[in-house]
Amino acid sequence: MHLDDMPEFWPTQQTVPNERWVFISRSNAYQCNEISQVCLQMHSDNNEMLKVLILYRKEELSPKNLQNRPETVPTPVGDCDMIRLGKGNLMKMKALLVFVVLLVTVCRGLDNGLARTPPMGFNSWERFRCVTDCDQFPDTCISEKLYKRIADLMVSEGFVDAGYEYVNIDDCWMAKTRDENDRLIGDPERFPSGIKALADYMHSKGLKLGIYEDFGTETCGGFPGSEFYLKTDAQTFADWGIDLLKLDGCYSFTHDMPVGYPTMEHFLNETGRPMLYSCSWPAYFYPKIPDYDKISTSCNIWRNYADVQDSWDSVLGIMNFYGKNSGNFSAKGGPGHFNDPDMIIVGNYGLSYDQQRVQMAIWAIIAAPLFFSTDLATIKPESKALLLNKNVIAVSQDSLGIEGELAFSLNDVQIWIRRVKPEGSIAFAIVYTGTGGTPKLIQIQCASLGMIKKGVPYSVMEVFDGKHMGLYKATDMFNATVNPTGVFFGRATILG
Amino acid sequence: MHLDDMPEFWPTQQTVPNERWVFISRSNAYQCNEISQVCLQMHSDNNEMLKVLILYRKEELSPKNLQNRPETVPTPVGDCDMIRLGKGNLMKMKALLVFVVLLVTVCRGLDNGLARTPPMGFNSWERFRCVTDCDQFPDTCISEKLYKRIADLMVSEGFVDAGYEYVNIDDCWMAKTRDENDRLIGDPERFPSGIKALADYMHSKGLKLGIYEDFGTETCGGFPGSEFYLKTDAQTFADWGIDLLKLDGCYSFTHDMPVGYPTMEHFLNETGRPMLYSCSWPAYFYPKIPDYDKISTSCNIWRNYADVQDSWDSVLGIMNFYGKNSGNFSAKGGPGHFNDPDMIIVGNYGLSYDQQRVQMAIWAIIAAPLFFSTDLATIKPESKALLLNKNVIAVSQDSLGIEGELAFSLNDVQIWIRRVKPEGSIAFAIVYTGTGGTPKLIQIQCASLGMIKKGVPYSVMEVFDGKHMGLYKATDMFNATVNPTGVFFGRATILG
Repeated sequence: MHLDDMPEFWPTQQTVPNERWVFISRSNAYQCNEISQVCLQMHSDNNEMLKVLILYRKEELSPKNLQNRPETVPTPVGDCDMIRLGKGNLMKMKALLVFVVLLVTVCRGLDNGLARTPPMGFNSWERFRCVTDCDQFPDTCISEKLYKRIADLMVSEGFVDAGYEYVNIDDCWMAKTRDENDRLIGDPERFPSGIKALADYMHSKGLKLGIYEDFGTETCGGFPGSEFYLKTDAQTFADWGIDLLKLDGCYSFTHDMPVGYPTMEHFLNETGRPMLYSCSWPAYFYPKIPDYDKISTSCNIWRNYADVQDSWDSVLGIMNFYGKNSGNFSAKGGPGHFNDPDMIIVGNYGLSYDQQRVQMAIWAIIAAPLFFSTDLATIKPESKALLLNKNVIAVSQDSLGIEGELAFSLNDVQIWIRRVKPEGSIAFAIVYTGTGGTPKLIQIQCASLGMIKKGVPYSVMEVFDGKHMGLYKATDMFNATVNPTGVFFGRATILG
Repeated sequence: MHLDDMPEFWPTQQTVPNERWVFISRSNAYQCNEISQVCLQMHSDNNEMLKVLILYRKEELSPKNLQNRPETVPTPVGDCDMIRLGKGNLMKMKALLVFVVLLVTVCRGLDNGLARTPPMGFNSWERFRCVTDCDQFPDTCISEKLYKRIADLMVSEGFVDAGYEYVNIDDCWMAKTRDENDRLIGDPERFPSGIKALADYMHSKGLKLGIYEDFGTETCGGFPGSEFYLKTDAQTFADWGIDLLKLDGCYSFTHDMPVGYPTMEHFLNETGRPMLYSCSWPAYFYPKIPDYDKISTSCNIWRNYADVQDSWDSVLGIMNFYGKNSGNFSAKGGPGHFNDPDMIIVGNYGLSYDQQRVQMAIWAIIAAPLFFSTDLATIKPESKALLLNKNVIAVSQDSLGIEGELAFSLNDVQIWIRRVKPEGSIAFAIVYTGTGGTPKLIQIQCASLGMIKKGVPYSVMEVFDGKHMGLYKATDMFNATVNPTGVFFGRATILG
């Protein structure tokens, strides 16, 4: 029996409690011996159940077990294939669940009108992590005070004017349990006014509020996950006035993601509130290559790779991952949907000034979301200037929405190129990854930097300083002296 | 026959040219079929020959072969053991050379009155390398202009007042060939006034001039090495008014170093001019542990490990090497003779501000020479302030001259401790190597930071800012919030 041929609704047997159940996802069959808390949740909402395909064996349903469950469970049968049931303890099968509705959702694609250019804003995670001790760290713990403080600085320091609009709460904002209506609530001590009040505050400042949840049973920080509450949570976020959802993937199975993440997309769309949808889905597949076609039609932005850490090694590691472009994911980016190499760490502890410039240049070249994660109260002026640099932001926000790529690398030199407006123009970055101490003179033909139209002059600008470098043609040589772990960031506007 | 029993002087056969020769060092026997250029050099100075024990097989004497010669040659027979001759092509042995004089030199120990505290100054290598193209890089190529420029800034910007006194020329300063008297000369285009004039210039500014040579046949950059010209070169440096010699170890055999480096010490002393003697000797033994007793009696400072590069990975790698303290080398340091973990790279491209603080703190704790390698014309104010920080320098220059050590490390936290004046006081560094983005609260008992005298109060100061942190006793807890890849640098002065 193919999935498409299976009944569309939950069988009536669902209403019989305390019996032996079998729940079936598109890839596995599991059973419950009795209606556990989780089973009841599923049972209580037929429609939701039809779309939520992530179910587990009974013995895995305790929170403790769910934390430690292995990533490998009984052999999947593949997308849209026959459902095969296990043996032995599956004898008392009560229900077969099929979810044609979901397939329709997946194929509909993302259409929320958001992220026409890479989104810009603040995210708390890289810098502020999961600090919940507000006695010890009153200014930096995850609390409404932190987000209001950052928001105020984003307004007063020119970040809003520069285009940064999202204030993203990351993990650890929640109370440890849901309320009596199964709805999430903010930690009452750290978010005494509630998340809706915080969203209202952001909106009053011309900002938007993003929030974090997790596709699994818990967030990475151990707070309640959305796995069996997707619809409820989507509605909660909409009710609060949330503008962005980052859905992480801890405590879940990767084989459930190709169905589950689109399911959340469906619920978000159902609320009627445009919420930018940030998926961690492909990152959990690494080093396997996920289905980027599916991802790019369900998510506005998606994390492909490991979290950025506060180090040059981390930034360079991400660059090298994007440089390889396994699965050609950069081709899936465009207005409305972009790959996300993770936060901008400019202004923190681990990068030199030159390394901060590299991150800004490459993130702009690859049309990455620009979510900085730093404390604007203590940021150094030169780092702040990088974040606010209008020419860098102009490359990032170029309306063609084309994701740039690593054109080539030779020894310790990398050339990155992005096509920008007006058509035929390019932005390019020459990165020198050497640590030999002295700047390197790099001499390269302009055609290798993307100025490929023969005989036509390009006007080249150094992006950070806006300095005009002169007119160049494809066959001319371009000379750049690049600092160790530094970059020359250029923009070549075609004049022909 | 033991070395001590062998004749002290070169046999008379030396004067017969174009014959087959065998030259013997303490560890190997080699021959020449004819008097080559190198053989003639050795032949021309009996006394020097008695002390220069580094000779090679004839087939290795061409410059090309010397560049590529392997590190392993016929089996050494060990220090002070019987000399064994090879077979076959050693049949026409003409001479046996023994070098009792040298052994006396080795045992005499270093006594030039220098480096009573770790030397401070500038060295060009890490930042300026071997750039010899002064057309392309007029301000930063290795030239008298560069050293004068840096010297002038050291005076005007307060570096001389802060204690920095050496201006060290590193590699690539020479003409490609020696002059008609076999003496080294500076590259005539880049050092048109000559090195003596540059030394005079430094002295007129209250500075000292250091210079670089190599123990092997070539410098690492391919300029003439000292191997068979040690005495000549020592005298040349003295004649020029040089104040420091860094003797590198490219293009030489490690098994010759335990004799050859002390030989150069002997020649330096013979000139009568105090020249601080910086040996790269042990660095070429890594990962083997060299004879630190011998090194510490022959050299004022000595490089133990790989060159520092412009990266946090490099600085952390050096710290970890020193932390292990293999062979207990830190015990060999003291007034007159210090381990050298290489240059301070503060002010360059690869380190964040916090990482720069770590290098300053740890280099001060381990009583390292403070040779910065940066361009004082372009250094950022916060980096300059680190180099000039009086409290950091006070720890570095503490007259007890005790080298601090890594007391212990736990996960991503390292505790480094140095005993300083007044007796019983300590300087300590708490390094957090994590890259997790948010500062770490470290709570540690004061005894673990070196405040071990029970019941006696210590006055603790944060070194960089000079902030008084309070009074602490051994059993008190000390709390420090340390940035990622950052440091808390404290000084605890005993009050009891």
